[in-house]
Amino acid sequence: MDIKAMAMAAKDAARDLATASGEARAKALDAMAGELLAVKEQLMAANAEDVRQAREQGLPEAFVRRLAVTEKIFQYMVQRLREAAALPDPVGRVLEGRTMPTGLKASKVSVPLGVVAIIYEARPNVTTDASAVALKSANAVILKGGSESIRSNRVLVDAMRKAIREAGLPENAVQFIDSADHGAVAELLKQDDYVDVVIPRGGKSLIKAISQGTRIPVIKHYDGICHQYVAADADVEMAVKVVVNSKTDRVEVCNALETLLVDRAIAPVFLPAVAEAFRQKGVEMRGCQETCRILADAVPATAEDWDTEYLAPIISIRVVDGLAEAVRHITDHGSGHTDGIITDNLREARAFTAMVDSASVLVNASTRLSGGGAYGMGAVVGISTDKFHARGPVGPAELCSYKWIAEGNGHLRQ
Amino acid sequence: MDIKAMAMAAKDAARDLATASGEARAKALDAMAGELLAVKEQLMAANAEDVRQAREQGLPEAFVRRLAVTEKIFQYMVQRLREAAALPDPVGRVLEGRTMPTGLKASKVSVPLGVVAIIYEARPNVTTDASAVALKSANAVILKGGSESIRSNRVLVDAMRKAIREAGLPENAVQFIDSADHGAVAELLKQDDYVDVVIPRGGKSLIKAISQGTRIPVIKHYDGICHQYVAADADVEMAVKVVVNSKTDRVEVCNALETLLVDRAIAPVFLPAVAEAFRQKGVEMRGCQETCRILADAVPATAEDWDTEYLAPIISIRVVDGLAEAVRHITDHGSGHTDGIITDNLREARAFTAMVDSASVLVNASTRLSGGGAYGMGAVVGISTDKFHARGPVGPAELCSYKWIAEGNGHLRQ
Repeated sequence: MDIKAMAMAAKDAARDLATASGEARAKALDAMAGELLAVKEQLMAANAEDVRQAREQGLPEAFVRRLAVTEKIFQYMVQRLREAAALPDPVGRVLEGRTMPTGLKASKVSVPLGVVAIIYEARPNVTTDASAVALKSANAVILKGGSESIRSNRVLVDAMRKAIREAGLPENAVQFIDSADHGAVAELLKQDDYVDVVIPRGGKSLIKAISQGTRIPVIKHYDGICHQYVAADADVEMAVKVVVNSKTDRVEVCNALETLLVDRAIAPVFLPAVAEAFRQKGVEMRGCQETCRILADAVPATAEDWDTEYLAPIISIRVVDGLAEAVRHITDHGSGHTDGIITDNLREARAFTAMVDSASVLVNASTRLSGGGAYGMGAVVGISTDKFHARGPVGPAELCSYKWIAEGNGHLRQ
Repeated sequence: MDIKAMAMAAKDAARDLATASGEARAKALDAMAGELLAVKEQLMAANAEDVRQAREQGLPEAFVRRLAVTEKIFQYMVQRLREAAALPDPVGRVLEGRTMPTGLKASKVSVPLGVVAIIYEARPNVTTDASAVALKSANAVILKGGSESIRSNRVLVDAMRKAIREAGLPENAVQFIDSADHGAVAELLKQDDYVDVVIPRGGKSLIKAISQGTRIPVIKHYDGICHQYVAADADVEMAVKVVVNSKTDRVEVCNALETLLVDRAIAPVFLPAVAEAFRQKGVEMRGCQETCRILADAVPATAEDWDTEYLAPIISIRVVDGLAEAVRHITDHGSGHTDGIITDNLREARAFTAMVDSASVLVNASTRLSGGGAYGMGAVVGISTDKFHARGPVGPAELCSYKWIAEGNGHLRQ
């Protein structure tokens, strides 16, 4: 495949998209949803073949599950496209602006970044989600999915390109690297003249390798060592529900809870209550000395536990002396992804949200709600753990840059 | 110098700054301005010594001029600090937010990036301007100025740190690498655990070397190959004034005009008028064939001219067939810094601002107005030619990231 030609074609498409109306882009997104419904059978057949081959190759069952397009996932893909169509246009927002005393009108207006490359693994829904986010923000997208889902992705991409073309926009708004060749990625990462941002979705080593191997800006999505701090003034019943949901709703995802911090004053009441729920759910508890004193079946945590993203039914638990110690623990051991406090005390809630420097800071809510859906952003292409450019869920607004437009009537520099 | 210790101290100061009130930071900025006035004599003496030594070393006169703190520059430094104090707080702005149907309140709130490193050359006013922008946005700053201004910078930094300390904020909010050793910069660029962004101010080779030698995000400030397009409907008198000001107000700066594009319909009237003004100002004209036909004293432009940032009293001039050709020229040859149109036609003005993908797009205004001052941003630390994170003038708002704060009352993921 000629990756450079693909990148140049994406840049051309991006230029056209940048001046297309928000209405035209919304219509294309709706058309993409419609076309997806039209090719459903074909998609399901292609996906069944992908799944069959993955099983044949002996790939792990968890991997195969991510690869499979169930009826529920299919409906979700269609819905994400329709939701994206309905969201307000992220392009052309006046982010700030003023008329200066000289009469010069200066406005900072959002514009698309240009060309977005997404490198991801198995899930075919990333193919449509990422295209939805990109097209909503008037960016052209180059998709590089995992080779295991290549048949499914072909059907999806063909359908989306057809819909975009029929809606009167450039079909190269969505392009797909139809190759299992790793050289294609290396070539893509060289296209810093044409590609404006790379978003890798996958393991830490993939992300590291990509960000060190390119001059294109990379939006990174690292670990989620997420905390909940149960303060002295927490409602115990609510705290148990929120903590258990944070840990057990899905253990293998980045916004699952890994470490529980409990104020010493509430520990004797809260810990036995939450431990009972964890036992029922089969969650292993690894605690500090004080935790182990209160919970006979907790095993002693090692220093390493506090820095571990388990992604498994295991939780580390530490009793702390108040907010300051909780914040210090999060600062020292957290990954800046998602951290929450459970409290009925307004001052503590305010102090926690001000002092904890994480992409998402929650009050009385499950860490599992950290994400674009719960925040009303619709489809996202990932959750950034960077502070630069995009932080937290990466939706259409995060794939925008801006320009300054200054309008005068003969204004000069004096 | 122990650069790592300095970076760690900056991170600690940044944590304190992040929770200090906007009022406390504004008071510190005012105190910095006051302290600058208090050390004026000492500063002027130190600067005179810097200037004397630069002359002794035979440094170019233009360089020495940038080094010298004149009365006007001193007043400007003080004023920039006071202006920064008075600007609205860029931290804690709710950038977007909503209450979801579930009752979860999600807000995207601006926060400081953390630690900003600025690497620059001679001008001592960067020392105070950069500190003003950093402190306004609650960032800690590490300054590495040119060795030629080291005496001036010492006085400035000591005064600013004293003012910050007395205002009750951590003095390590402003730190200065008091060393001419190039190894210090290399060491600084390794501190990606503590430094959140690097802003080099200087030549292209400095910026390239820095951005290739670090994993810290870099805000880059490359060439300004700036254009003015004089459309068919331009007011000729205004166009002459704006174009001449764009080119001649100061030729050596990044927002000076380099290439003039003129619609064929207005060229026979406009070009002789502007040429007369250029002759009076001693500007060399390098034209396309059509330009040379109209202006007997224009020399033929070579292909290279269209891609050159002269930073000198030279202008390249091309006659084009309307807006589309002008935009195409800017797309092919511009650097995305600052480009303007001069027209009385509303449709053309709109099309130009939509189609030209530059950090600043101007209508009927001098390219020299592209910058933080004319846009009401106050002091800036540079003008970014990146699209990622910060574009155009980099003021306090551009040194911010954000976090999502989500508040529930026991919200779970279902």
